[in-house]
Amino acid sequence: MGKIESVQQFLRNQDVDAAFVTTPDNIFYLSGFSSNPHERLLGLMIFKEAEPFIICPLMEVPDVKATGWPFEVIGHADTEDAWDVVLKAIRNRGYMPKSFAIEKSHLTVERLERVDQLFPGATFTRLDEQLNRMRVIKDAEELTNLRIAAELADYAVEVGCKEIAEGKTELEILMAIEFEMKKKGVQKMSFDTMVLSGPKTASPHGTPGDRKIQKGDFILFDLGVIYNGYCSDITRTVAFGEPTDAQREIYETVRQAEQAAVDLVRPGVKALELDKAARDVISTAGYGDYFTHRLGHGLGISVHEYPSITGTNDMILTEGMVFTIEPGIYHPDITGVRIEDDVVVTADGVEVLTKFPKELRIIDPA
Amino acid sequence: MGKIESVQQFLRNQDVDAAFVTTPDNIFYLSGFSSNPHERLLGLMIFKEAEPFIICPLMEVPDVKATGWPFEVIGHADTEDAWDVVLKAIRNRGYMPKSFAIEKSHLTVERLERVDQLFPGATFTRLDEQLNRMRVIKDAEELTNLRIAAELADYAVEVGCKEIAEGKTELEILMAIEFEMKKKGVQKMSFDTMVLSGPKTASPHGTPGDRKIQKGDFILFDLGVIYNGYCSDITRTVAFGEPTDAQREIYETVRQAEQAAVDLVRPGVKALELDKAARDVISTAGYGDYFTHRLGHGLGISVHEYPSITGTNDMILTEGMVFTIEPGIYHPDITGVRIEDDVVVTADGVEVLTKFPKELRIIDPA
Repeated sequence: MGKIESVQQFLRNQDVDAAFVTTPDNIFYLSGFSSNPHERLLGLMIFKEAEPFIICPLMEVPDVKATGWPFEVIGHADTEDAWDVVLKAIRNRGYMPKSFAIEKSHLTVERLERVDQLFPGATFTRLDEQLNRMRVIKDAEELTNLRIAAELADYAVEVGCKEIAEGKTELEILMAIEFEMKKKGVQKMSFDTMVLSGPKTASPHGTPGDRKIQKGDFILFDLGVIYNGYCSDITRTVAFGEPTDAQREIYETVRQAEQAAVDLVRPGVKALELDKAARDVISTAGYGDYFTHRLGHGLGISVHEYPSITGTNDMILTEGMVFTIEPGIYHPDITGVRIEDDVVVTADGVEVLTKFPKELRIIDPA
Repeated sequence: MGKIESVQQFLRNQDVDAAFVTTPDNIFYLSGFSSNPHERLLGLMIFKEAEPFIICPLMEVPDVKATGWPFEVIGHADTEDAWDVVLKAIRNRGYMPKSFAIEKSHLTVERLERVDQLFPGATFTRLDEQLNRMRVIKDAEELTNLRIAAELADYAVEVGCKEIAEGKTELEILMAIEFEMKKKGVQKMSFDTMVLSGPKTASPHGTPGDRKIQKGDFILFDLGVIYNGYCSDITRTVAFGEPTDAQREIYETVRQAEQAAVDLVRPGVKALELDKAARDVISTAGYGDYFTHRLGHGLGISVHEYPSITGTNDMILTEGMVFTIEPGIYHPDITGVRIEDDVVVTADGVEVLTKFPKELRIIDPA
C-alpha cells in the first residue's frame, strides 16, 4: 500500500474526513516534495474519499510536479489568501469535511483557528502518532538512502582523522571535512558538525573553536550528512598520540557499552532494554554519573525523530526501525568519549549502517 | 521601560493575566537567554501582577542564570512532566491566571491543549503583534550588534572577491568565506551562504555547487553572520572580467533601484513606497518581469522577521526599524543581479549598515 493510501486507510478506520499535513518533513515523506516554505502555506490535504492535493507557493508548483506527484497541485500567489484557495479546492471535490486529522505537535494555533473558521464546527484529532508509526518503519528505498548517508559520514570521519595534526584548530579540521563533503555532492550536513578536542570532549554539546590540537588529546567527531533527504549521524572519538591508561579505560568502557546495545537489537526487544544494556556496562565500570543522556534517537528524514531510545520507553522494536546508539562518558578530568552508530532492526537482528572501526584509533603525532 | 515591563504593561492594558512565550527568538529578546530546546519545553511566563519565571530543561538552568536573568528559573528533568512544574510555579505565586496571551503563530495545538487542560476555562489572545511591535524597534545595544554583524558580512564579501579565480568552484569560494568567518569568531552564519556564478545568478534561490568560475561571469554573494544573537544579510554581485553592455545595464538598473529605495527611507514613509520606488526603476528600464520577489524583510534576532517590505504593506516607518532592501533582476539570457543592504530608520533618514561598495566591482582575471 502506498503512503497516501495508508493515510486514507487510517482516515476510514478512524472515520475522519480529511488529514491536513503541514510539516515539511511529513510532506516530503508522503509526496517526495521537499521544501521549506517559511511563513508561506505549504500543505497536503488527504481525503477519506476524494483525491488529495498539495497547496504550495505559486513558484514551487513546477518543483512539486517534477517530483512525479500524480495528484493535483495548487499554487497560491503572495497576493491572495492561501486559505481561500484551500477552501475552493475542497469545494471543487463536492465535499465538506467535518473532521480533520492534524499534526497537533506542529500545527500552530493560528492555523488551527483558520481551519476552524473555514469549516465551522469541525472536529480535530491527532495525526502525529499515525505518521510516526508509518515513518518509523523504513522501506527499501529509504534504507538505500540511509546506507549511502552513513557511508558518507564514515568517509567524513576518515577525512577528519587525516586532517588531525599538532597545532591545527578544531575549526580547521571541521572546515576541511565539510569542504570534502561538498565536493562529494553533499548539499547539507544533517546538523552542525562537531569537532572537539582535549578537555572539550567532556561536554556533550560543546562548540568547535580555535583550540589547537595537542599530543595526548582525544578528538571527538559528531557529524552527519543528508542524502536524498535522509540523514546520517555518527560519532567517533580518536586519540592523538599514545593515550593514558585512564583514557583507554574510558574508551573501552564506552566501546563495550555501545557494542552491548548494538548486539541486543532485534525484533521483540524493548527500546529501554538497549538503554539499560549500555548503561549497565558504564555503571558497572564506575562511570554511571558521567553518562548523562539517553542512548539514542530515531533517524530518517529528520536527524532526531521518533522513537527516543531511553530508559523509560517500552516500545518494542520491529523490523525496519532505524535509530542511533550513542553512549558516552564525559569525565571532566580525564576525557570525554562518545561512540555512535546508526542501526536498522532487521528480520532477525541488526544492520549497522555506520562502519568506521570502533577499536581505538591512535593517530601518530610524528 | 524594560522589555518584561513592556509586556506587563500590555497585559494590564488588555486585562490579560499572563503571557506565555515559547519561541526561542522571543525568549532571547525578552530575557537574553538563547537556546534551542528541540522538543523539550522552554517557556517564559510573564504575569500582570507577579514575578515572571523561565522554565527550561534542567541542564540549562546554569546558562539562564549566567545571562543575568534576575527572576526565577525553574529546571525540569526529562523524567518529570514539565507542565506539572509550570503549574506548581504558578500556584506558588498564589495566582491562577484565567486569560493568557500566547504566540498563536508559533504555539502548537498540542501545547495549547496542555495549557487549556491545566487552566480549565482560560481564554487565549494573541501576543504575536505586541512582540513584533516591540522587536521591530531596535535599541542602542541591538543596533551595535547589528552594525558589527553587518561589518562582518562586508568583510565576508571582500574575502569572497579575493577568492575569485578562473576555474575555482562556487563551493571552494563559499568554504573559504565561511572558514575566514569562523576564524573571526563567527559561530554561525545567519543562513546558508550563497555563492552563485554565471547563469546560476539568474535564480533567486540557487544552490552553490561545482560550477567553475569563468571569464565573463557575474558572481553573486548572498550571506550573513550572527553576532551576539543578531543577524546580517548582504548581497553583492561582482563581475569577473569585463562585463558586456547588457550585463552592465542590468547591474546599473538594480543599483539605481536599490539606491532609490534606500534614499526614500525615513520616518513617515510607508513600506510599500520603498517597494514601489525600486520596482518603478526596474520596470521603467524594461525589466519589471524579472524582479520576482518583495523588496525586503525585517532583520534582527531572526534573519527574516517583521516587517515584510512589499508592495502592499502600508506600515509607516518609524525610527529604529531595521530591514533589508534587496531588489534584483534575474534575466536567464544575460545575468542575474541582486544588491542588498541592511538599513536602519533614523530620526531623520537612514543609516546603511552594510558598507561594501555598490559600484560594479570588476575583478581582473589576469
